[in-house]
Amino acid sequence: MRYELYYWPSIQGRGEFVRLALEDAGVEYVDVARLLNRRGGGIPALMRFLESRSVGRPPFAPPFLKAGKLLIGQTANILLFLGPRLDLVPKNEASRLWPHQLQLTIADWLAEVHDTHHPISGGLYYEQQKPEAKRRAAEFRAERLPKFLDYFEQILTRNPKRTCYLLGKAFSYVDLSLFQMIAGLRYAFPRAMARLEPAHPKLLAVHDHVRARPRIAAYLSSPRRLPFNQEGIFRHYPELDG
Amino acid sequence: MRYELYYWPSIQGRGEFVRLALEDAGVEYVDVARLLNRRGGGIPALMRFLESRSVGRPPFAPPFLKAGKLLIGQTANILLFLGPRLDLVPKNEASRLWPHQLQLTIADWLAEVHDTHHPISGGLYYEQQKPEAKRRAAEFRAERLPKFLDYFEQILTRNPKRTCYLLGKAFSYVDLSLFQMIAGLRYAFPRAMARLEPAHPKLLAVHDHVRARPRIAAYLSSPRRLPFNQEGIFRHYPELDG
Repeated sequence: MRYELYYWPSIQGRGEFVRLALEDAGVEYVDVARLLNRRGGGIPALMRFLESRSVGRPPFAPPFLKAGKLLIGQTANILLFLGPRLDLVPKNEASRLWPHQLQLTIADWLAEVHDTHHPISGGLYYEQQKPEAKRRAAEFRAERLPKFLDYFEQILTRNPKRTCYLLGKAFSYVDLSLFQMIAGLRYAFPRAMARLEPAHPKLLAVHDHVRARPRIAAYLSSPRRLPFNQEGIFRHYPELDG
Repeated sequence: MRYELYYWPSIQGRGEFVRLALEDAGVEYVDVARLLNRRGGGIPALMRFLESRSVGRPPFAPPFLKAGKLLIGQTANILLFLGPRLDLVPKNEASRLWPHQLQLTIADWLAEVHDTHHPISGGLYYEQQKPEAKRRAAEFRAERLPKFLDYFEQILTRNPKRTCYLLGKAFSYVDLSLFQMIAGLRYAFPRAMARLEPAHPKLLAVHDHVRARPRIAAYLSSPRRLPFNQEGIFRHYPELDG
C-alpha cells in the first residue's frame, strides 16, 4: 500500500501528526501537495478533492489520506485507520479506543493553541485580532496549558508499566503526537514552557524518546521536516508568551 | 449491557449526542449525574472519575461512558464505540471511518459554536468577553456557519441513494447528531438560521426525519430531554445573532 497524504505544503500543521506516524513506520508515502504542480502536486492537487463535486465522500479540510480507494479525513481518524496498519497501536478494538481518546484530546488541545493567535477568525490575519489574541493567550498559558500538560503527565504517572509510553506497554502514534505538541509548544511559548517543564518530567521523557528514535531522528534532520514557521498552528509571537 | 453515561446534569451539551443515540436505540442506560447525590448521582459521581488518582484511564472532560469495565471519553469516540452495538452504523471497519469523520467534523463545528459566546476563555463568564464574542459570532455567522451547512448539504446531495440519511443507505448516529446541530443552531441563532435554511432543504429533511422517529419523538417530549438554556453550548444571546 502506497499512502498519499494531502496537506498544505508549507506548514507542519495538522498534517505533521500523520507524517510522523508514516515516517516512524518507515512506509512508502507521497506528500502529494509538496510535489511540483506539473508533477500532479501543489495546492491544486489538494483543492481538487475539496472542490470537485464528483468526490462522494469529500473531506471538510486537510489533512486527508488516500489509501487505495479509501479517502480518509480528520487527523485523529487517519491515525485510527493507520495505527494498526503501521503497528503503532494494539490490534484489538477495545485497546484502540483509549489511544484514540487521547488523540482526540490532543486535537482539542491543538485547536486551542491555534485559537491563541486566531481567537476571532481563521479567515482574518493575526494582525487583525491582536488584542483578543493577547487576552486569549494569557488565559491559555495560565489555565489551559497547565491543565493539558498535567493531564498527560498524570497518564504517564498512572502507567503501571513505568515506561515512557502513554499506553504503557507499547509505543504508539499518541507518543508521536505528544512529541509534536511539546516541540510545537516550545517553539510557540518558550517562556511559558520553561516555567512549566520542570513539573512535567515524564512528558519530556516522551519527547526525548521520540526525538531519538532512529527513523524520527532521520526525518527531523531531513528536508522533509518543514521548520516551524509563522504560518502554521504553532507560531511564536513573543507578545503572546507572557 | 447497561450503559452509564456521565455528563453535566443541567445541560444538553456534548452529552446530548450520546443521549440521542442511546434513546434512539431504546437501550437501558443511566444518566448518572442526573440521579440524586444520595443515590450515587450528581456532580460528585462525575468528578470522582476526573479527580481520583486511582482511575487508570481518566477522561479529560465529560461526557464519558461506562460500559462494563470500559471507560470511554470523547463524544465522537463514545459514538464510535456505541455505533455498531446500537445498530446505528454499518458493522465493517471501513464503513465506520466515514461516519466517524463526519462526527469529528460536527465536533469541530460544535466547538466553534461554543466559542461564539466564549472566544477568550471557558473559565470566564460570557459577560466578561462580550465585545470579543460579538466579533467572533459575526465571523461565525458570515463564514463558518454557511460553510458547515453547505458541507453537510453537499454530502446529502451527492448521496446516490436519494435518502435523507447522511450515509445513504443506512440511518446512523451522524443523522442524530446533525439533528441536534440544527435544533441547537435554531435556538441560538434563529435569525441567521432563518436566512440560511432555505438553501439547505436536505439538512432540514434530516432534522424533521429524526424528530419524527418514534423513540426520539417520545424522548423529546419527556422530562429526560433537558431544554436548551443559557448554560449550555447552544445559547441564545440576541446580540450574537446579528
